[in-house]
Amino acid sequence: MEYSVSDKLKNMKPSAIREIFKSLTDPRIIAFAAGNPAAESFPAEAFGTLAGDIFAKDAAKALQYGITEGFPPLREFLTERLAERFGCDKNGNTTLVVSGGQQGLELTCKVMCNEGDVVICENPSFIGALNAFRSNGARLVGVDMEEDGMNIEALEEACRQNPRAKLLYVIPTFHNPAGITTSLEKRRAIYEIAKKYSLVILEDNPYGELRFAGEELPTIKSMDTDGIVVYCGSFSKVLSAGMRVGFVSAPDAIAQKLVVAKQVEDVHTNQFFQMLCHAFVTRYDLDMHIASIRALYKKKSELMVTSLETYMPDCVSFTRPEGGLFLWCTLPEEIELSAFVKRALERFVAVVPGTAFDPDDRGVSHSFRLTYATPTEEEIVKGVKILGELVKEMLAEVK
Amino acid sequence: MEYSVSDKLKNMKPSAIREIFKSLTDPRIIAFAAGNPAAESFPAEAFGTLAGDIFAKDAAKALQYGITEGFPPLREFLTERLAERFGCDKNGNTTLVVSGGQQGLELTCKVMCNEGDVVICENPSFIGALNAFRSNGARLVGVDMEEDGMNIEALEEACRQNPRAKLLYVIPTFHNPAGITTSLEKRRAIYEIAKKYSLVILEDNPYGELRFAGEELPTIKSMDTDGIVVYCGSFSKVLSAGMRVGFVSAPDAIAQKLVVAKQVEDVHTNQFFQMLCHAFVTRYDLDMHIASIRALYKKKSELMVTSLETYMPDCVSFTRPEGGLFLWCTLPEEIELSAFVKRALERFVAVVPGTAFDPDDRGVSHSFRLTYATPTEEEIVKGVKILGELVKEMLAEVK
Repeated sequence: MEYSVSDKLKNMKPSAIREIFKSLTDPRIIAFAAGNPAAESFPAEAFGTLAGDIFAKDAAKALQYGITEGFPPLREFLTERLAERFGCDKNGNTTLVVSGGQQGLELTCKVMCNEGDVVICENPSFIGALNAFRSNGARLVGVDMEEDGMNIEALEEACRQNPRAKLLYVIPTFHNPAGITTSLEKRRAIYEIAKKYSLVILEDNPYGELRFAGEELPTIKSMDTDGIVVYCGSFSKVLSAGMRVGFVSAPDAIAQKLVVAKQVEDVHTNQFFQMLCHAFVTRYDLDMHIASIRALYKKKSELMVTSLETYMPDCVSFTRPEGGLFLWCTLPEEIELSAFVKRALERFVAVVPGTAFDPDDRGVSHSFRLTYATPTEEEIVKGVKILGELVKEMLAEVK
Repeated sequence: MEYSVSDKLKNMKPSAIREIFKSLTDPRIIAFAAGNPAAESFPAEAFGTLAGDIFAKDAAKALQYGITEGFPPLREFLTERLAERFGCDKNGNTTLVVSGGQQGLELTCKVMCNEGDVVICENPSFIGALNAFRSNGARLVGVDMEEDGMNIEALEEACRQNPRAKLLYVIPTFHNPAGITTSLEKRRAIYEIAKKYSLVILEDNPYGELRFAGEELPTIKSMDTDGIVVYCGSFSKVLSAGMRVGFVSAPDAIAQKLVVAKQVEDVHTNQFFQMLCHAFVTRYDLDMHIASIRALYKKKSELMVTSLETYMPDCVSFTRPEGGLFLWCTLPEEIELSAFVKRALERFVAVVPGTAFDPDDRGVSHSFRLTYATPTEEEIVKGVKILGELVKEMLAEVK
């Protein structure tokens, strides 16, 4: 039977990355393509202890319907922490618990955009967000990234040319996939341009807790004296990805609409895990736990950088991450990206081609994304060596 | 600041019922208004035991990202059970795990409807579904319910008058709020009309496991030889509402789009609770557990019916539920519904006015919804007595 599918979903395909995930079950594959945090970052033992307590003492509350805005003690904790650590306190803000940062992104677009409205994004950008915007019928306009963040002239030009632009989506810190951290100057410029063109900024900060080198930078939300920034964060990279607990700090009027939109999507976020998160931050030391994750990623990222320096020819450039999970490599133009990715997979090394992150679907990327979070140290060295050899082979073929 | 909120969300307000929930924290209130299942229906002790096992043996999997379609062993179990118990096996179907039945309803509308398309609904109908459709910009057309289900002539007329109708939303078994179970003849008629007008039927069956009187009736999905029915179910009323685990059985082509739409909403449903549900159905007897819930609701519903027979004047009619959580009372026309609800709350009895369930916002209902699931037996008798006295008072006032 021919179904009449909605225009916004008709041409959407499952995320390329999520499809790669499914193929990663082959144990021979070195999975540089994944977006998963390291299993060591999950406080499994503490969660086990706390879960036992909750089921013993508070099961009726943990298993019953909760309120859409989130478990009140967790919201209180988050409001305080987001103010202290990330400056989410510059005007009337409401903190909401959502089912992963992803839901915060999707809801914000649903609330702010009609079908056909424009979301201005960084190019490249996080595919999960791009697809969330597409699923709401929004049109995407990409602005190229430079080493210190978006090209500001191109951003202003995009704003001028798109009067239907409603939302400006940015990942200023440890950008996925580009590994870039937007400079303080550009953060300020982005804020001013959004204000000038009456855009709401959607600031996505899933990796903000994971800095292991360099200096902390203020969030764009911390500059939000005008109430134009929706800030999304998540516990996925510090407590558990599979539990689907994230959070949003938004100007009150927007937050009220986010609640309405969330209520009809899933009523509320898993109640037990909201209580578990709150118990963890109350009875354990979250900052000490995060410090251990930072140390882990620092070590693994340094090993990946060293391996790239050792095995990659000089014509391949790559970022030196100061935090987060990802590293972004750029091939010389004479190497065809899709052939490279395919041949790497034949040698059991999976990477994500940059084309997957293109808001405009131009397909011109020469870059690919690597993660150091989940592969073992042996796999990092071995996998990078295989990629280096492949680059050299392909260079020899085109010469 | 004035925000430019999307047309579809601009005029939406939080669900009246969810707002009533928040006021139910007052311990003096007898909460006939809630939609919560009884806390006794949650297998808290078994969950505690199983959770300990999962955190001890399988934490890395339980806390990591999973796949959008759902935890494979749980999907296999659900596919088999839905085929056996509810006839979800009449064509190529895919079973998906979703974050509560609510998400299944919302996703189906997002996939099938453009902004401005029409969803035909029963009148009254479940407010969470109605708002989910509204949040996707769909227009609602209500068809009045009779004692044995929708008025079929009115349904056909609605189909004729609305060429943009895409979806037909029904709750054939233990209807929320009307307490009605649609007859076999009307189920067949609804299927044939949907087929004739190329509508997809969205069959919502959250209470289907909770029959405590009368004969089982086949689902509309069990008649689905043409692949036009999306079936939504949930563990909320048999294992836990707060965990947000539901499921959908849909024709493959629709299911594929539901996966794409779900991926961008929350990536996947809480992984730990999917594993917990699977462990429960594997190691415990789900049917025995459900039998105990049925016995509980049978007893409480009978008490509520007896109390209504005792305390309500004859001019008040009410349903005799054969399952589910709700009972639907209709006042004589001379009593003003909103005044009745308000005065009941002043006497600490909370009920939901029928106007909250009106797809067309005509505000003409004289009915209200009662639940027997969460109040104690003492509260049921006391609360119904208060309502009966209030009806008599208000009748005396208008005479």
